[in-house]
Amino acid sequence: MILPIFLIFSLLFSTSNAAVQDFCVADLTGPDTPTGFVCKKPAVVTVDDFIFSGLGAGGNTSNIIKAAVTPAFADQFPGVNGLGISMARLDLAVGGVVPMHTHPGGSEVLIVISGSICAGFISSSANKVYFKSLKKGDIMVFPRGLLHFQINAGRTPALAFVSFSSERPGLQILDFALFANDLPSEIVETTTFLDDAQVKKLKGVLGGTG
Amino acid sequence: MILPIFLIFSLLFSTSNAAVQDFCVADLTGPDTPTGFVCKKPAVVTVDDFIFSGLGAGGNTSNIIKAAVTPAFADQFPGVNGLGISMARLDLAVGGVVPMHTHPGGSEVLIVISGSICAGFISSSANKVYFKSLKKGDIMVFPRGLLHFQINAGRTPALAFVSFSSERPGLQILDFALFANDLPSEIVETTTFLDDAQVKKLKGVLGGTG
Amino acid sequence: MILPIFLIFSLLFSTSNAAVQDFCVADLTGPDTPTGFVCKKPAVVTVDDFIFSGLGAGGNTSNIIKAAVTPAFADQFPGVNGLGISMARLDLAVGGVVPMHTHPGGSEVLIVISGSICAGFISSSANKVYFKSLKKGDIMVFPRGLLHFQINAGRTPALAFVSFSSERPGLQILDFALFANDLPSEIVETTTFLDDAQVKKLKGVLGGTG
Amino acid sequence: MILPIFLIFSLLFSTSNAAVQDFCVADLTGPDTPTGFVCKKPAVVTVDDFIFSGLGAGGNTSNIIKAAVTPAFADQFPGVNGLGISMARLDLAVGGVVPMHTHPGGSEVLIVISGSICAGFISSSANKVYFKSLKKGDIMVFPRGLLHFQINAGRTPALAFVSFSSERPGLQILDFALFANDLPSEIVETTTFLDDAQVKKLKGVLGGTG
Amino acid sequence: MILPIFLIFSLLFSTSNAAVQDFCVADLTGPDTPTGFVCKKPAVVTVDDFIFSGLGAGGNTSNIIKAAVTPAFADQFPGVNGLGISMARLDLAVGGVVPMHTHPGGSEVLIVISGSICAGFISSSANKVYFKSLKKGDIMVFPRGLLHFQINAGRTPALAFVSFSSERPGLQILDFALFANDLPSEIVETTTFLDDAQVKKLKGVLGGTG
Amino acid sequence: MILPIFLIFSLLFSTSNAAVQDFCVADLTGPDTPTGFVCKKPAVVTVDDFIFSGLGAGGNTSNIIKAAVTPAFADQFPGVNGLGISMARLDLAVGGVVPMHTHPGGSEVLIVISGSICAGFISSSANKVYFKSLKKGDIMVFPRGLLHFQINAGRTPALAFVSFSSERPGLQILDFALFANDLPSEIVETTTFLDDAQVKKLKGVLGGTG
Repeated sequence: MILPIFLIFSLLFSTSNAAVQDFCVADLTGPDTPTGFVCKKPAVVTVDDFIFSGLGAGGNTSNIIKAAVTPAFADQFPGVNGLGISMARLDLAVGGVVPMHTHPGGSEVLIVISGSICAGFISSSANKVYFKSLKKGDIMVFPRGLLHFQINAGRTPALAFVSFSSERPGLQILDFALFANDLPSEIVETTTFLDDAQVKKLKGVLGGTG
Repeated sequence: MILPIFLIFSLLFSTSNAAVQDFCVADLTGPDTPTGFVCKKPAVVTVDDFIFSGLGAGGNTSNIIKAAVTPAFADQFPGVNGLGISMARLDLAVGGVVPMHTHPGGSEVLIVISGSICAGFISSSANKVYFKSLKKGDIMVFPRGLLHFQINAGRTPALAFVSFSSERPGLQILDFALFANDLPSEIVETTTFLDDAQVKKLKGVLGGTG
Repeated sequence: MILPIFLIFSLLFSTSNAAVQDFCVADLTGPDTPTGFVCKKPAVVTVDDFIFSGLGAGGNTSNIIKAAVTPAFADQFPGVNGLGISMARLDLAVGGVVPMHTHPGGSEVLIVISGSICAGFISSSANKVYFKSLKKGDIMVFPRGLLHFQINAGRTPALAFVSFSSERPGLQILDFALFANDLPSEIVETTTFLDDAQVKKLKGVLGGTG
Repeated sequence: MILPIFLIFSLLFSTSNAAVQDFCVADLTGPDTPTGFVCKKPAVVTVDDFIFSGLGAGGNTSNIIKAAVTPAFADQFPGVNGLGISMARLDLAVGGVVPMHTHPGGSEVLIVISGSICAGFISSSANKVYFKSLKKGDIMVFPRGLLHFQINAGRTPALAFVSFSSERPGLQILDFALFANDLPSEIVETTTFLDDAQVKKLKGVLGGTG
Repeated sequence: MILPIFLIFSLLFSTSNAAVQDFCVADLTGPDTPTGFVCKKPAVVTVDDFIFSGLGAGGNTSNIIKAAVTPAFADQFPGVNGLGISMARLDLAVGGVVPMHTHPGGSEVLIVISGSICAGFISSSANKVYFKSLKKGDIMVFPRGLLHFQINAGRTPALAFVSFSSERPGLQILDFALFANDLPSEIVETTTFLDDAQVKKLKGVLGGTG
Repeated sequence: MILPIFLIFSLLFSTSNAAVQDFCVADLTGPDTPTGFVCKKPAVVTVDDFIFSGLGAGGNTSNIIKAAVTPAFADQFPGVNGLGISMARLDLAVGGVVPMHTHPGGSEVLIVISGSICAGFISSSANKVYFKSLKKGDIMVFPRGLLHFQINAGRTPALAFVSFSSERPGLQILDFALFANDLPSEIVETTTFLDDAQVKKLKGVLGGTG
């Protein structure tokens, strides 16, 4: 005869409330820390905290760059908080481009789901450029912090998903950083060697001042 | 008049060979370390080290579990070595299943590309189960080290890509671990409470001995 | 003549309240973060926060598995919070066993204090099993995240202490994870290849439903 | 004609409030965590959080050791919270000395700005000592946790700045640790082999009791 | 009828040699890296690499300090390489003492197996001392890098095992660091405020020169 | 009578060759790993491995940017290998500028030694700019991976030292990355919105092709 072990098992662990920390779903209303948001109480965590449906629909590419990036970082997808991973969706219409940018906090892997994408990054050693056209199913890794870009290389819309080695990798788009704020034009010019006319033109386009 | 700055820039950095380490492409023939393979010499690194095409084609699902997992870990995709990220492809034919397993070294995010997948994981706190059917475009995160599974939940083949927070997350499939080796049946039974007949049946099926 | 240096030393550091963080004793009533509990105010920390006496007495092994595990993780022993280390006590009566389990968050070292213990783990590479009988004074390491077990291998009670490379290593016992919750039997069977009768029998024993 | 891209760009990111965590300025009034203070709300962060002027003036060296250390750790300089770096200023009058000490939490690099400093550390392997007189412009690294010291080696005041691989490296001065508290003299003597008279003399000088 | 799944499983993983890195047993003859020794080839790893019997016998305490420390760090116990954990054995004869020391690389947890031990550490904040007599079964944690000590507090020999949050925590014994090398007495005196006679006496005792 | 403890101490540690790893001086001729160079054998390490004199002399600022950066990273200063810290020297002649750049691998703290420097960084959140003129003695922190710059803001030469939270922080200068390589002009223009004339002008100046 087999006795109910679960009566027995309840004796197995002297401290029954040994609440190990398997995960730390972000409490977006709580304080932030150097390693992520404070955790939701386990009692209120549900399976939906670990699922995100926001990448299911294409972003709106009816814009000049003909592209859209939809993030699923800890701020949008609280379940990845503290787990060192996150995702985003890239939609590139024909002629679309994700401009030169960096992720200060993590490395990225991209997988092409449909279409063809020319992607590349620039290393800091000798400024060597690594770029190539990727076809459906190809994956490419972009090491952390380096400038990189993605361009639709085909005649059809392209779709890719990207994953990051951080739940909050950050995203610094070069043109935004230089031209879409109040950094004085003189400083931009001094630190980039760009001409005054070029800087002012792009400031105008991107809404920068100063 | 603008002088050639590059003559000038060459003076900018006193140590011209300041070879920073942007990446560390695995030299799979060299020694392994606690944090990954030793690096290829930068001079022999090419763009192809950062690209992997092995996930482009579906795995062979003509098997009983009707599923295939194709990894792109550092061992297959040397460009991710040291970067804390990797990927794999999941093909699930109708009725297919990726059996209960863990990744000892990292968390996982899955994205459904086509079909429908029932996925879940079991937390160690109170053994609570988090599972749900995911549709195309849904993503789900599986915290590091916890038992989890994926089952084709639809009437069409399903395709998913998974990313890991480690370049070598590991993969321990429960049935393989218990029944596909020479761990004596008596030990399996003692440590799992499974019946002798059950253990021997699965050992037979999976090629285990002892 | 020697002047009182302490008057002097008080001048040494311009900012006298340079409160460095030597430790972070867990405030178990405060919020949790991805790297542990928030810290108690240093002013209320005492030596007793760094000492735990709960491992001094044997756990109750009057159960079917004839074993008891007593944890001293951050949840029980707040002094280890943030320090990357914790302990537990293993009592194994004659015939006792700590069933197949994993620690999702850390590696383990076990030392046999009395008796003899057969311990082992299963690697994910080729499912190779590493197991052996350990005598008093032997230590064995179980790499993070891998399935492992301990069995009393002698004719006397056995005692061991285990240490972890994390203050909250977690503990996922295979049988609990599979059979002591509401995960539907059909899913258990599909993902483990266990027979329906076996699953239902163990669900019954362990209190699982569904 | 160029259209205003910024209207367009605002469509680029589906989730406009993708608040990535570039930094985590310490909220010194909030709770502390194992990895640093909780973060100030980004909206109240200003450029002054990233600047610290407290190292601009020399510390008061009118004391017996003729030296002063001025820290710019996270507790004084909230901008470094979570960033793994901090600084301090060392003023050494003629004859000045920074006594034997350790930083439990980080490695240190020192740069001599003026004067000459004899600096050294003691490794734990074979107790080998590495020390040398440093001149203006020299830098020296002191590996984490090892005993080290700095002595003005010249006939003029010396100034140095030190940086740490942690925003809160800690500072344990040997004489303070042994003699400036209530650790019983008997314990000090038993654990250091120092003579009773020596211990009591230094306790008297440094304000220790017991 | 059940078909042999193992024939099938062999098709499951497209890359059969997906050699994940579950562990990295130290190859003590190979090069060392910042994170540990290079790994032995998996093919030559055996269960004995994960077991160490050197802590089974008491160390020789027939010495003035009446104590012995026996380490099981990565250098002695290659199986812990890269796993962030290690152990040591402490034997304290009646009157025995482990002198004031630090572990530069990790935190420590001590468990008293027999006898009674007075143990303590000194924090760097206000030099506060935390010490207490521990009885059999008590555990105490010593945060990384801080000065600490252990003294046999009873009338019988004491035995303790200690675990570290690093596979190579290091061990810097204060008296060895100050007096058992060729650091000039003048420097020792200048940086510790110890009297010349005291320094020379201990140098004589411990074999130091200079 | 005091017996020679050093005879005794030699018995203290059962394993006399307990070679702890206090440091890992880079063997620049050996293989590189994801966490730094392999270590020099301890026996050949000398104090000079921990000292670097290359920052003592000003860099050559007789160039158009009127500035020079002299690194002391692990590649130049092997003693910092694996220690998570490094330094560099900044010389800015009147009118000098360190152009817009990032350090992919670490955060930076700058201290002004002489002169006045206008320094700033751009956050990725809302592209907010944080910049200010720093005077002698001021320190400023630049969080990891973000675009930043330094400009001589005064009428005299300026000198600053910078420290990094990594022994190999990397350095990606925007203009070099965009214009000093063979990245096709068309791609530069597509991904930066810069005009063709502007791109070709700077390519000409900086030596880029394509």
